[in-house]
Amino acid sequence: MAHLAFERLTRDEIGALAPSAVAIMPTAAIEQHGPHNPVGLDTMCCMAVARSAAQAVGPDLNVVVCPPLHFGSSHHHLPWPGVLTLTGDTFGTVLYELLDSLRMMGFRRVLVLNGHGGNEFLIQQTARDYVMAHRELHVVAGSYWDIARAALEAIPRDGDFSIPGHAGSFETSLMLHLDPELVHTDLVPVGGPKLPRSAVANVTEVRDGGYLGDHPTGVSDDASHGTAELGRQYLDAAATVVAARIREMAETA
Amino acid sequence: MAHLAFERLTRDEIGALAPSAVAIMPTAAIEQHGPHNPVGLDTMCCMAVARSAAQAVGPDLNVVVCPPLHFGSSHHHLPWPGVLTLTGDTFGTVLYELLDSLRMMGFRRVLVLNGHGGNEFLIQQTARDYVMAHRELHVVAGSYWDIARAALEAIPRDGDFSIPGHAGSFETSLMLHLDPELVHTDLVPVGGPKLPRSAVANVTEVRDGGYLGDHPTGVSDDASHGTAELGRQYLDAAATVVAARIREMAETA
Amino acid sequence: MAHLAFERLTRDEIGALAPSAVAIMPTAAIEQHGPHNPVGLDTMCCMAVARSAAQAVGPDLNVVVCPPLHFGSSHHHLPWPGVLTLTGDTFGTVLYELLDSLRMMGFRRVLVLNGHGGNEFLIQQTARDYVMAHRELHVVAGSYWDIARAALEAIPRDGDFSIPGHAGSFETSLMLHLDPELVHTDLVPVGGPKLPRSAVANVTEVRDGGYLGDHPTGVSDDASHGTAELGRQYLDAAATVVAARIREMAETA
Amino acid sequence: MAHLAFERLTRDEIGALAPSAVAIMPTAAIEQHGPHNPVGLDTMCCMAVARSAAQAVGPDLNVVVCPPLHFGSSHHHLPWPGVLTLTGDTFGTVLYELLDSLRMMGFRRVLVLNGHGGNEFLIQQTARDYVMAHRELHVVAGSYWDIARAALEAIPRDGDFSIPGHAGSFETSLMLHLDPELVHTDLVPVGGPKLPRSAVANVTEVRDGGYLGDHPTGVSDDASHGTAELGRQYLDAAATVVAARIREMAETA
Amino acid sequence: MAHLAFERLTRDEIGALAPSAVAIMPTAAIEQHGPHNPVGLDTMCCMAVARSAAQAVGPDLNVVVCPPLHFGSSHHHLPWPGVLTLTGDTFGTVLYELLDSLRMMGFRRVLVLNGHGGNEFLIQQTARDYVMAHRELHVVAGSYWDIARAALEAIPRDGDFSIPGHAGSFETSLMLHLDPELVHTDLVPVGGPKLPRSAVANVTEVRDGGYLGDHPTGVSDDASHGTAELGRQYLDAAATVVAARIREMAETA
Amino acid sequence: MAHLAFERLTRDEIGALAPSAVAIMPTAAIEQHGPHNPVGLDTMCCMAVARSAAQAVGPDLNVVVCPPLHFGSSHHHLPWPGVLTLTGDTFGTVLYELLDSLRMMGFRRVLVLNGHGGNEFLIQQTARDYVMAHRELHVVAGSYWDIARAALEAIPRDGDFSIPGHAGSFETSLMLHLDPELVHTDLVPVGGPKLPRSAVANVTEVRDGGYLGDHPTGVSDDASHGTAELGRQYLDAAATVVAARIREMAETA
Repeated sequence: MAHLAFERLTRDEIGALAPSAVAIMPTAAIEQHGPHNPVGLDTMCCMAVARSAAQAVGPDLNVVVCPPLHFGSSHHHLPWPGVLTLTGDTFGTVLYELLDSLRMMGFRRVLVLNGHGGNEFLIQQTARDYVMAHRELHVVAGSYWDIARAALEAIPRDGDFSIPGHAGSFETSLMLHLDPELVHTDLVPVGGPKLPRSAVANVTEVRDGGYLGDHPTGVSDDASHGTAELGRQYLDAAATVVAARIREMAETA
Repeated sequence: MAHLAFERLTRDEIGALAPSAVAIMPTAAIEQHGPHNPVGLDTMCCMAVARSAAQAVGPDLNVVVCPPLHFGSSHHHLPWPGVLTLTGDTFGTVLYELLDSLRMMGFRRVLVLNGHGGNEFLIQQTARDYVMAHRELHVVAGSYWDIARAALEAIPRDGDFSIPGHAGSFETSLMLHLDPELVHTDLVPVGGPKLPRSAVANVTEVRDGGYLGDHPTGVSDDASHGTAELGRQYLDAAATVVAARIREMAETA
Repeated sequence: MAHLAFERLTRDEIGALAPSAVAIMPTAAIEQHGPHNPVGLDTMCCMAVARSAAQAVGPDLNVVVCPPLHFGSSHHHLPWPGVLTLTGDTFGTVLYELLDSLRMMGFRRVLVLNGHGGNEFLIQQTARDYVMAHRELHVVAGSYWDIARAALEAIPRDGDFSIPGHAGSFETSLMLHLDPELVHTDLVPVGGPKLPRSAVANVTEVRDGGYLGDHPTGVSDDASHGTAELGRQYLDAAATVVAARIREMAETA
Repeated sequence: MAHLAFERLTRDEIGALAPSAVAIMPTAAIEQHGPHNPVGLDTMCCMAVARSAAQAVGPDLNVVVCPPLHFGSSHHHLPWPGVLTLTGDTFGTVLYELLDSLRMMGFRRVLVLNGHGGNEFLIQQTARDYVMAHRELHVVAGSYWDIARAALEAIPRDGDFSIPGHAGSFETSLMLHLDPELVHTDLVPVGGPKLPRSAVANVTEVRDGGYLGDHPTGVSDDASHGTAELGRQYLDAAATVVAARIREMAETA
Repeated sequence: MAHLAFERLTRDEIGALAPSAVAIMPTAAIEQHGPHNPVGLDTMCCMAVARSAAQAVGPDLNVVVCPPLHFGSSHHHLPWPGVLTLTGDTFGTVLYELLDSLRMMGFRRVLVLNGHGGNEFLIQQTARDYVMAHRELHVVAGSYWDIARAALEAIPRDGDFSIPGHAGSFETSLMLHLDPELVHTDLVPVGGPKLPRSAVANVTEVRDGGYLGDHPTGVSDDASHGTAELGRQYLDAAATVVAARIREMAETA
Repeated sequence: MAHLAFERLTRDEIGALAPSAVAIMPTAAIEQHGPHNPVGLDTMCCMAVARSAAQAVGPDLNVVVCPPLHFGSSHHHLPWPGVLTLTGDTFGTVLYELLDSLRMMGFRRVLVLNGHGGNEFLIQQTARDYVMAHRELHVVAGSYWDIARAALEAIPRDGDFSIPGHAGSFETSLMLHLDPELVHTDLVPVGGPKLPRSAVANVTEVRDGGYLGDHPTGVSDDASHGTAELGRQYLDAAATVVAARIREMAETA
């Protein structure tokens, strides 16, 4: 047995598992994803990767998937409805306290698996801060598309879209695979201006109040190249690489 | 259509619904619930009441159920494993920011439906603070067992247990009804000392570091009177009264 | 000698008394109390109960009454003049630090005796938080009308008014007993709309910016049933029950 | 009528007075004052100066004396019992919110009259911060012995003691005048080491954890020169100068 | 005139320049840089890049270089002496308030030029947060080696060292170029274990209390390949690319 | 060797020096200094005093001058351009963390040498708070003009100006001595209204939003009496007295 949903276990099962298991703490967001996707897309995709990765790890290592932190740092989406957002400070504090909870109950390895771009600096900074104060914890923090970037980029695709983008063909593909009823395919915007994107890694440029202020569609790339089959391949690739990373964590002395 | 899961809607659906709908913001906890119940019990029960109440409201009023705030104020359970807890300050801040998000996207009526005793002061204080600063919002905040107390107490029961208690016959009944596979009936503790409980409403007594410090079972009452049938009755009664309260909110000018 | 005013003792007297005594920490408010009562009513009544209860305890147990925290959480009264208010966060922090001071000088039992409704969640939450972090302290926290509710309700009264209400017949009676010169009996409002009040215990409903936003009198109930004699009975009853609660605390191992 | 106790007025009296009156906000401390003085000395002396100054102002200007902030920044006295202290941050926040309350109810002139040395930087910094954010308020903030220093130093005295010192002849004199029963004259320490004191104005030197860490008496100067008559003269002088300063504030355009 | 040192200008010169100029806000650190480099290396290099870039921009665009924020987020270096560090929260708050100051005096374009790896998430998160709240500001935030990575990597080098690394050949080269007297070339560690480094962009792994806990040299790469000539080339390349980025900012409508 | 620039030392040099040396932590400001002085005046003067004092101490005691905290509490100058300011809370927190850094690397004696009036309460309060929490540190905190006031006032001067004033003859003299090219002597305001100044030590009066709100020149005194020769004398006098104070700290057991 490898994949375990934290909330379905008893306290004593968790206490017994914690010292040798790896916990996945999923962080995501509830926010607009274009006219065609549900606002819960980030959480749904992140949880799907977490569960699939936990399964892929195999039966000899226990992986416990925590309930997700649904609410991310999404103020840059606020001009649109559907956004349940925390400030950056609050998000970081919540994650810090959840890491503390996991450590106090006995976990020693935690993967903070992120599914929303707006959280990327916060999860990495919080991981650093936490481990500096509590050195018995070993933490990896990253977005699933960054952990698995090489594998995701290697999958052949039609159309010029980026990974992950926002509500474009990458995320729409995953959603079409996970729950096609939730995608309003008749509302997928075609063409239109792209969302600006940083051309240089680790350099952030912000103007006009953040990148979504006045954008006409709230979608970063042409979403019309998304297919369920592509989504299936993305999910498999992400789960495979994340599972390998989990194994690597468990094997660290 | 009355019951709507927030995360499954699109941004534009939410924007259209918000001004006339009632939003339910569920707050709960992940914490030990005795040797026999899953740690996610509070969230599972709270979400079940939220969904059933939303259904019971009927088709002419839209009720949107938000994703739950899984993590409550549960430090008093920390001697046990399985607790994912926020400090009181952090919990209150998160709820404040979620109310702010709901207001900004157009909601005017929010029911903060709570499923964990440790949150009871925090949700009420936060509701007061928020509405004083943003008077266009109308908020009701309470635990489902308090909102529906009269109806719940009126259901005949064997055994001397309290509502809600903690992990005793009330909560175990609900869990047996909702997902019997998650209840380890062979581990239900019988007898043993009760958890102390306040004898006087609105007066809190704390000693020995909070009420669960050294308790042998972490269960407040004899849990052996719990049955799935009783759980069904409790869920129905709670949903019916909560639905009535939602209607009342919607009818307020 | 039972009743001792903290501020009139020397440091060494306090150091000697602290381990075996019970400290009362009064929390109240300075806020509007209708056109007829002084703004210090909450503090005056709370201190009167504290002192009378300390006397009623009897000579074999030392009860030290601290100077009151005059300033409560009263933002809901701000449309009226006369309100000296703290935010909820600040109030809770002050109380936390006062509990810490009392613990550091040797007290092991503290009664947080409250005299203002707006503080009720904050004192209970702070008591929980403090004792969880410092388990050597034993704290009871509640409003005097809640601690003594049964006895207060048992006193026969004319007129339909609630206990405590706000600036209505209950509080006006206490004030008429304590300092009749401060009550402008010619200005007592008669009739008029009642302030809304929660119909269900532990469930808070707030709209229109909190319950006093546009109220014409700022008084919760008809205040015209207040008498000094009733005030005397209320004070005696409250003091008797609070004294019994103090004894109970002292007898806890 | 010049002197008015804030807490004894009604909301409407305060509302009418506020725009043209001067409010005194007393800040003090509850802390050890040697083996012979009560721990409430700072508050008692500060309130006596406030009330006497308000009387001395004369009948044509209303001066409203607020209830004192009893609790100051006294961590440097913590090795002794009897200290009810706030952290510097909390003290400053409380004072900020009280200034805000006074402004909101209509006051335009506030004297923050301090009676505890440990608060001196905090009251002045808070006054600056507040008025920079809310320029309609005119604030003077200082300790009564600094406001009236010239007059106090001019009173002839026997013995080498400083003003104010801590629990030495200056404060003991005031206490002997205000409430001689509270001074344990048999316990006045004679001689012994003086508390170190800054030799240069506006320069703070701290070592060994703050100046009271290991001091044998907790008294700054020989307290044996204190007399009730000297206390009477000190109170009169302080009240006269503070009253003049209040007049000056009122006359500022 | 292109390069202007903020602190050497008068208030009125700044007021006149601000609307059309670009401000550089340098952020760096004071921390251990191996046995051979001065602890101020990060600030010295960052300021050198800032000044050279400002010069390289050319005379038609004013670039104002602010005094550096010397103190970064360097807790991971604390086992070594020489570290003057701020917590992450404090660092972010300081930067937020400096951006606010620059906006209030009229600047509309700010480059946060970073010279310490530990600040990288904080500067980007703060830039996002600030601009979302104050949309009139246009901010670019990044480390100089990330902004100019392509150009820096293109410079031929002997030895296997990374850019920037920590106190290795890259930084040592810059220091040898800027101020060779400050480099103790006899103390350059040769060989030894490398500091671990993230293998995947945007994914942070922390264990053993952060990456410098028990490292024998505190140097990330073999520093023995550093030369002053290489440092000159690195500085020129960085300045050229940063200057181009500044031009690009100024040309944005 | 007595004077050492912190940032130019290696970690191991600092580690060896710290236990027996005195560290100077300079705090200053970047803010308007009239039409004629550079905005960095406070930092430049404070650093000049720090360096000269360190030299004057003599070769047998090591004095390490830290990089300055450039940014002070200068909101009262905000109506003018050129102000890079921190809130009081942020400034105090930064200084607290810098003291903590110095203590952790082994320093036991720190002089917080201030060069901006707006910081005076904050540095003294922070020094108190820090040392109360960490008693192994010995801290002196003050402005250089307060430490050396007697010597500075003893220097004969023409004209009626105060020490330090703001951007008047005292500061202008120092600047003319340190870097005459930065003083625009043609822009020195002559005459005009003085900035109001507290007439009583330790008593703060603020109105109209702080003392610089609407002042026509932003200069406190006639600046036309400033000369380079006077500046030289001021610097020498300040350095001499500060050096003596440093010696005194080092000689404290």
